Amino acid sequence: MRLLFLGDIVGRSGRKAVVDALPGLRRRYALDFVIINGENSAGGFGITEAILDELIEAGADAVTLGNHAFDQKDALVFIERYPQLIRPINYPKGTPGRGASLLKTQAGADVLVINAMGRIFMPEMDDPFRAIDAELTACRLKQGADAIFIDFHAEATSEKQALGYFVDGRATAVVGTHTHVPTADDRVLPNGTAYISDAGMCGDYNSVLGMEIDEPLNRFITKIPRQRFEPATGPATISGLAVDIDDKTGLATNCGALRIGPHLEPAAPAFWEG
Amino acid sequence: MRLLFLGDIVGRSGRKAVVDALPGLRRRYALDFVIINGENSAGGFGITEAILDELIEAGADAVTLGNHAFDQKDALVFIERYPQLIRPINYPKGTPGRGASLLKTQAGADVLVINAMGRIFMPEMDDPFRAIDAELTACRLKQGADAIFIDFHAEATSEKQALGYFVDGRATAVVGTHTHVPTADDRVLPNGTAYISDAGMCGDYNSVLGMEIDEPLNRFITKIPRQRFEPATGPATISGLAVDIDDKTGLATNCGALRIGPHLEPAAPAFWEG
Amino acid sequence: MRLLFLGDIVGRSGRKAVVDALPGLRRRYALDFVIINGENSAGGFGITEAILDELIEAGADAVTLGNHAFDQKDALVFIERYPQLIRPINYPKGTPGRGASLLKTQAGADVLVINAMGRIFMPEMDDPFRAIDAELTACRLKQGADAIFIDFHAEATSEKQALGYFVDGRATAVVGTHTHVPTADDRVLPNGTAYISDAGMCGDYNSVLGMEIDEPLNRFITKIPRQRFEPATGPATISGLAVDIDDKTGLATNCGALRIGPHLEPAAPAFWEG
Amino acid sequence: MRLLFLGDIVGRSGRKAVVDALPGLRRRYALDFVIINGENSAGGFGITEAILDELIEAGADAVTLGNHAFDQKDALVFIERYPQLIRPINYPKGTPGRGASLLKTQAGADVLVINAMGRIFMPEMDDPFRAIDAELTACRLKQGADAIFIDFHAEATSEKQALGYFVDGRATAVVGTHTHVPTADDRVLPNGTAYISDAGMCGDYNSVLGMEIDEPLNRFITKIPRQRFEPATGPATISGLAVDIDDKTGLATNCGALRIGPHLEPAAPAFWEG
Ligand SMILES: [Fe+2]
Ligand SMILES: [Fe+2]
Ligand SMILES: [Fe+2]
Ligand SMILES: [Fe+2]
Ligand SMILES: [Fe+2]
Ligand SMILES: [Fe+2]
Ligand SMILES: [Fe+2]
Ligand SMILES: [Fe+2]
Repeated sequence: MRLLFLGDIVGRSGRKAVVDALPGLRRRYALDFVIINGENSAGGFGITEAILDELIEAGADAVTLGNHAFDQKDALVFIERYPQLIRPINYPKGTPGRGASLLKTQAGADVLVINAMGRIFMPEMDDPFRAIDAELTACRLKQGADAIFIDFHAEATSEKQALGYFVDGRATAVVGTHTHVPTADDRVLPNGTAYISDAGMCGDYNSVLGMEIDEPLNRFITKIPRQRFEPATGPATISGLAVDIDDKTGLATNCGALRIGPHLEPAAPAFWEG
Repeated sequence: MRLLFLGDIVGRSGRKAVVDALPGLRRRYALDFVIINGENSAGGFGITEAILDELIEAGADAVTLGNHAFDQKDALVFIERYPQLIRPINYPKGTPGRGASLLKTQAGADVLVINAMGRIFMPEMDDPFRAIDAELTACRLKQGADAIFIDFHAEATSEKQALGYFVDGRATAVVGTHTHVPTADDRVLPNGTAYISDAGMCGDYNSVLGMEIDEPLNRFITKIPRQRFEPATGPATISGLAVDIDDKTGLATNCGALRIGPHLEPAAPAFWEG
Repeated sequence: MRLLFLGDIVGRSGRKAVVDALPGLRRRYALDFVIINGENSAGGFGITEAILDELIEAGADAVTLGNHAFDQKDALVFIERYPQLIRPINYPKGTPGRGASLLKTQAGADVLVINAMGRIFMPEMDDPFRAIDAELTACRLKQGADAIFIDFHAEATSEKQALGYFVDGRATAVVGTHTHVPTADDRVLPNGTAYISDAGMCGDYNSVLGMEIDEPLNRFITKIPRQRFEPATGPATISGLAVDIDDKTGLATNCGALRIGPHLEPAAPAFWEG
Repeated sequence: MRLLFLGDIVGRSGRKAVVDALPGLRRRYALDFVIINGENSAGGFGITEAILDELIEAGADAVTLGNHAFDQKDALVFIERYPQLIRPINYPKGTPGRGASLLKTQAGADVLVINAMGRIFMPEMDDPFRAIDAELTACRLKQGADAIFIDFHAEATSEKQALGYFVDGRATAVVGTHTHVPTADDRVLPNGTAYISDAGMCGDYNSVLGMEIDEPLNRFITKIPRQRFEPATGPATISGLAVDIDDKTGLATNCGALRIGPHLEPAAPAFWEG
């Protein structure tokens, strides 16, 4: 099975790049399942129903979130109607929406998608290790699901790496998000789980985290906000991780970066080429 | 001019990999200047004089530090005798050692090396933006120095990117360190400064930040320390950034990742090959 | 019922003051129940079994803890044998010891003692609001217990106040600890729960948090540790909260500060005097 | 000389209480100088020129600020026109306004008022210890000023206490602000500086930090904002510190809490009574 994950979409520029590229990518690589982090897709803050529809239309099978999940308040309502929209599982009990969702590929395979937030340098959430462990215990690879994908939305590389080893052999892939910068440590861990510390963002990289440079720089220098953050409007790069899955075990056989667009070194999954 | 930077050396495994590889790299690429971050070279915590000597012997022209600069207390003393050893410039006034050092290549070019610490999710240091600005104002490219290199030891990608734009066109390169994970966003910024959010570490990547997995994982799960952190002892990968410098302007013409060793995708500076 | 709580005992000086004063206080005020926070009683870091025995001997009915609960590793073992020793309830499931304990006064009344840690500017614990809510739901005032006491070990006044209102009318008292400074906001909340943001410490107040001044001050100024923190050795002040309980409702009728010793303004519960 | 400091005014309720009480307090105690922290006086966030005028009119000789200094953007402009309005001194160089101001009492004495922000659990400011040290070196007690008052706006009790000892004997008083809860540790330090960890707020204490309880409580429980914070509208308590100054040395001979209003235990400076 072939799975593609794309990191945090930032604003209109990021959305356009994803929507333009995704149909072609699905065809070119015969993708079975596509997951996109959409926590910054609405002007940098949260997601709207119209944008979610647009992403699904363009070929997203699942959309994950993060600390900006509910920046657009409507999301608290429409998230209940979309099994494809997954918010961090370690929000307090009773939070609208779901933190894990069992979804089907077109070919009928079951993919469990989990979203979780780290706690180091992040809001005070429930324990992500225990929340994920409970899911993996309830739904084992090739028993409850043909593939299990975890978007771990976290700041600290230590926490991300620790989670990778924690689920190694029990999940198909752990992909970090939130820093908006792709890391170069994509690999299959010893027991078969694909891992990358951060998938990067889908946005204009001539920016600070996808936002126009001026205001973030102003705040670092003066410590006094001058205006709101605005998404950068230059052409976006899409950035993510391609994961090749062994249908017998549900584990990863290969993974590799996908990067298309200006500013960053382009990357494509060699194991799917040719 | 050809400059190579290698990220945080972690423990014996990282030291061995660097010391083994560096002489060959200097020859192969005809390197003019080599900078290494050594803040974790002594068992993961700080640096000793013997290790510093070993790194210089192996071909390091400069060694930078970070939040672990003075974990080995002797460093407070011997740092005064080594112009090549540079600690974060934004420690309080009066801190032993220097935060910027003007060093010579064998060919006689002047390289200003600056080390600074970020403040987001980090100890309470002086303002790195102002400290760096003062250095760049006092020592301009091609006036005070033929190349200016900044090791920005920081956690948050926002702060690293903001600093990149802040010095773009005034420094040869800004290289992030501290997360121990290489990022894939190496590029030359619009005004000629080479940039990468993090150079990664020189250490065993089958680890949590270069440390044996068990204890960090234990702490994330139980919140109760059980033992000390110990550097992982498997074979290390060296990771860093190669920077090609225009001798006329002192700015970067090219930059690219260097990664040699297991676990990570190998990388070499194509612009120096062949 | 008359309940006395004493804040974090710091080191030998704090222990001595408590052990000297407690028998007399029990007699003078005819105290029914005494709770002491002991997280810093062993040289400033954690608690030993010998110290716990000493405190029980001196008249403590319960000893609560905090972020330093397990600084002395033995506590992970002996805590299982002492129903009077209570660690934060929002440690991860499986942590040795208990976070709530139903104890008896000499007169046979049942007192539920809960210890919890805040999460703002503190380690990443489970949700204290939910953990406490579960206890209060399972054990209601005058049904499961004659009094319910909560030691909320937290940094931020916002979190402490919010917890106060959250349990107002369901618990006898919420007493903050951890800052080692007594606050002057002791009062009975609108629905009958006694509240104070911080009970202060039992220790030498000519200090920084009960520790010798030099090293903390050195670290604020130089950002480089020079030696370990050592408890200050001058005479200690004991500091805490007296709570007068309505036996019919289990709620508080009165509360007031108790402070005995040098440096701070003395305070005694007027409602128990004369 | 008699000096009164009042802690953070929160919203309309806090303003009304201060404006109503201050003229009477000035008369009753024959106050020479009154300082008020106004960082939350405008609806909880910042200060406006109209409010500043109102406070000066009511008898404030100086108004200090904190992390909310510039929440009302106009303050960046009008602060330049008011020597009585003092923002944290450790904002970056170039910030509008001043961090220290030498002001005159009606009797012609010189009072240096310094405002500074702590850095523990706070925004990334310049070093408050060094900034204050520079002021105290430039302006010595009874040489440059007849009294030196420091409003240290900080979260951590450790940092506040450390600063107290750092300036003990060089300043008349160090008063903490920012937690909005008065502490009970007011005292004159060994070398003559009056100290309290926090002066508390002037606001409705039936609240969370002066704000209506519902929304802060909601955020602690659900982690999802539902609405803006609004100042509580019940009657306010004014809270602060009275400092009695030796005219020969400029040091404090006495200090004590002042609290007038509902919810908290009333307090008045006994040394000025009768
Ligand atoms: Fe994001
Ligand atoms: Fe995020
Ligand atoms: Fe490091
Ligand atoms: Fe570091
Ligand atoms: Fe404590
Ligand atoms: Fe504590
Ligand atoms: Fe305030
Ligand atoms: Fe504040």
